[in-house]
Amino acid sequence: MSSAPVSGKIMSMGATMAPIITFYNESNWSKQNEEPDICDFTFGNPHDKPLDGYISAVQKSLAPQNKDWFAYKQSEPEAQAVIAKTVSDYLNHPFNAEDICITNGAFAGLNVVIKTIVDAGDEIIYISPHWFAYEGMIIGAGGKAVNLSINRETFDLDLEAIQAAISPKTRGIIVNTPNNPTGKIYSRETLTKLADILTAASEKNGRTVYLISDEAYHKIIFDGNDFVSPATIYPNTFLVYTYGKVHLTPGQRIGYIALPPEMENREAIHTSVNLMQAFSGWSYANAVLQHAIGDLVKLSIDIEQLQWRRDFLVDELTRLGYESNHPEGTFYLIVKSPIEDDWAFVEHLSEFKVFVLPGMTFGLPGYFRLSLTANDEMVKRSIPGFAKAIQG
Amino acid sequence: MSSAPVSGKIMSMGATMAPIITFYNESNWSKQNEEPDICDFTFGNPHDKPLDGYISAVQKSLAPQNKDWFAYKQSEPEAQAVIAKTVSDYLNHPFNAEDICITNGAFAGLNVVIKTIVDAGDEIIYISPHWFAYEGMIIGAGGKAVNLSINRETFDLDLEAIQAAISPKTRGIIVNTPNNPTGKIYSRETLTKLADILTAASEKNGRTVYLISDEAYHKIIFDGNDFVSPATIYPNTFLVYTYGKVHLTPGQRIGYIALPPEMENREAIHTSVNLMQAFSGWSYANAVLQHAIGDLVKLSIDIEQLQWRRDFLVDELTRLGYESNHPEGTFYLIVKSPIEDDWAFVEHLSEFKVFVLPGMTFGLPGYFRLSLTANDEMVKRSIPGFAKAIQG
Repeated sequence: MSSAPVSGKIMSMGATMAPIITFYNESNWSKQNEEPDICDFTFGNPHDKPLDGYISAVQKSLAPQNKDWFAYKQSEPEAQAVIAKTVSDYLNHPFNAEDICITNGAFAGLNVVIKTIVDAGDEIIYISPHWFAYEGMIIGAGGKAVNLSINRETFDLDLEAIQAAISPKTRGIIVNTPNNPTGKIYSRETLTKLADILTAASEKNGRTVYLISDEAYHKIIFDGNDFVSPATIYPNTFLVYTYGKVHLTPGQRIGYIALPPEMENREAIHTSVNLMQAFSGWSYANAVLQHAIGDLVKLSIDIEQLQWRRDFLVDELTRLGYESNHPEGTFYLIVKSPIEDDWAFVEHLSEFKVFVLPGMTFGLPGYFRLSLTANDEMVKRSIPGFAKAIQG
Repeated sequence: MSSAPVSGKIMSMGATMAPIITFYNESNWSKQNEEPDICDFTFGNPHDKPLDGYISAVQKSLAPQNKDWFAYKQSEPEAQAVIAKTVSDYLNHPFNAEDICITNGAFAGLNVVIKTIVDAGDEIIYISPHWFAYEGMIIGAGGKAVNLSINRETFDLDLEAIQAAISPKTRGIIVNTPNNPTGKIYSRETLTKLADILTAASEKNGRTVYLISDEAYHKIIFDGNDFVSPATIYPNTFLVYTYGKVHLTPGQRIGYIALPPEMENREAIHTSVNLMQAFSGWSYANAVLQHAIGDLVKLSIDIEQLQWRRDFLVDELTRLGYESNHPEGTFYLIVKSPIEDDWAFVEHLSEFKVFVLPGMTFGLPGYFRLSLTANDEMVKRSIPGFAKAIQG
């Protein structure tokens, strides 16, 4: 038995985050991120004032309308109804109010879903580049994290690799669309093929292989592109969403897990998700945010402004000799590092007060990521720094 | 491999809550709790208007003072400093600001602590009567829940039973003081003896046996009694607290895990607790509540009013022939069921529109629990119902 002061499990979980933790605690960004004249493209945090209407919506919902206003809240029926209507309208697919499990954000939603379906040894597939916490959350549930890559040429799902990775122990696959960091929206055609693979695998395995659809950015879509939720294509999908992106308020936590009406064993799953929300530390949104949701669903950051930042940065970076992608959604841009070592380039770029996230922290070495939540002024001011950095 | 739609683990976890879930979904209370003329003593939910000052404190903290106002929040340094000062003053024991891990309530705090220290097969001792979720949370962490009883005569900790239950696999013990539901405050003498047992066990086992101190009610103390936190006596204690009780706002989630400055390996533990907060679904309090904490720590429900309710109910119930305890703290009262089957008595009592919680739901069959958060009017109005119910 180990004499370590903490569990082996948390040490394994922590190890999966080592690159991003090192960046957070030891990079030049960690030392300079409070300085007022930097251009900070690292994380999806706000660099402008909060959204018009956000504060008044929350303020309004503080006024108690009954004695239970601040009582224990699970998923409040009124909030479930509002969310079911908006998501049904948006995806053009009906969701039932009772199938909306209101969480304190997508981090909680993903954790709850994974813990609800995974037993020791079960495999969950996740795909790189990846969000920081997928692997650790799978390990935390006692599962085995199976890592695949996207198709590096097209940034699309690699369906052959997925097919090949499925085993009798596969319990699910996490799909993130639109994708952080590639900005790719997976097409209906691709998702239909994926659904066929998962349906066949479920039949062969004699138990359901779930799709966990991380759709944190599903309302942040550029160029009028179509967004298709996997939940409208593959019935055994958990749709996980957060309002933290579309409101750009990641410190306020409200989101949901939506179960499609076509999901098998929906009642048993619903009961278990609700239990797991409680056991995971009461992973429901706070009372005030649930009361405010009717107003909050109407709010969004300015997508056109984000799109302007994308276009400006793509044009300017290309002009300077960088190779940038052209995201279809999300608020990220990924750019090839001019030198192989993306960490070294990111630290070099920081000498010009421009801060970006190295690809090695999210499973895409050789690239770096920009968050378009930097403000317009930072976006413009960053160009000379990018110009000098590529000159070596 | 099971073809069940959810994990075996969540089914085991859910089974531990079966009695309370049955009460919640199937008892007379479940059918009548919305009726306006009932006397509802079941759960610790508000039955009066919110605390003076609560809404204005939260409202004030909505106004952004910088661009990061609603950005990602872990434990905000200003909030940590406020909490460290108030808990240090209250317990007359110094806590460092950096050792305050701010959580979205005690449910989250307990879950995070248990998951941080427990590996598969590790044992955690918990003591009945017990809070609903201890056993399931231990199972959720892959641990083995070892159940003991209090001394049924004195309602004190049974130190001999604890000593006898410790094994080489013991990783911790959960102590809840003041205790829900007995209202017992464990004395300095008892806790010192417990600390000696745990210190000896840690030495013998070659690894730390932790004390998890669930102190959700530590500010709700009657008769000017002294409260002693185990964290001031046994260094390897996680102090878990929530403001949800003292504000009577269980739908708003803010609390903390405090590590005493004397804790061994504090830095490693701190790092792991913080990681586990993230991996458990971002178990930090929302931005707004962290900003408001300077004002919120000054607020409390009226303890004298609760004490009046305790005294009134104890006197009246005794007069009617019930055997009630006389709690030293918390907002609960436990009463012997006049018939052996507490569930049957609770349903019988409900015929008189008085609703209480049967002891079989919290590991104390033969008793029922009243929450003193019922309002004064309910307290007075309930007496004829109690009178009729005991007459059969």
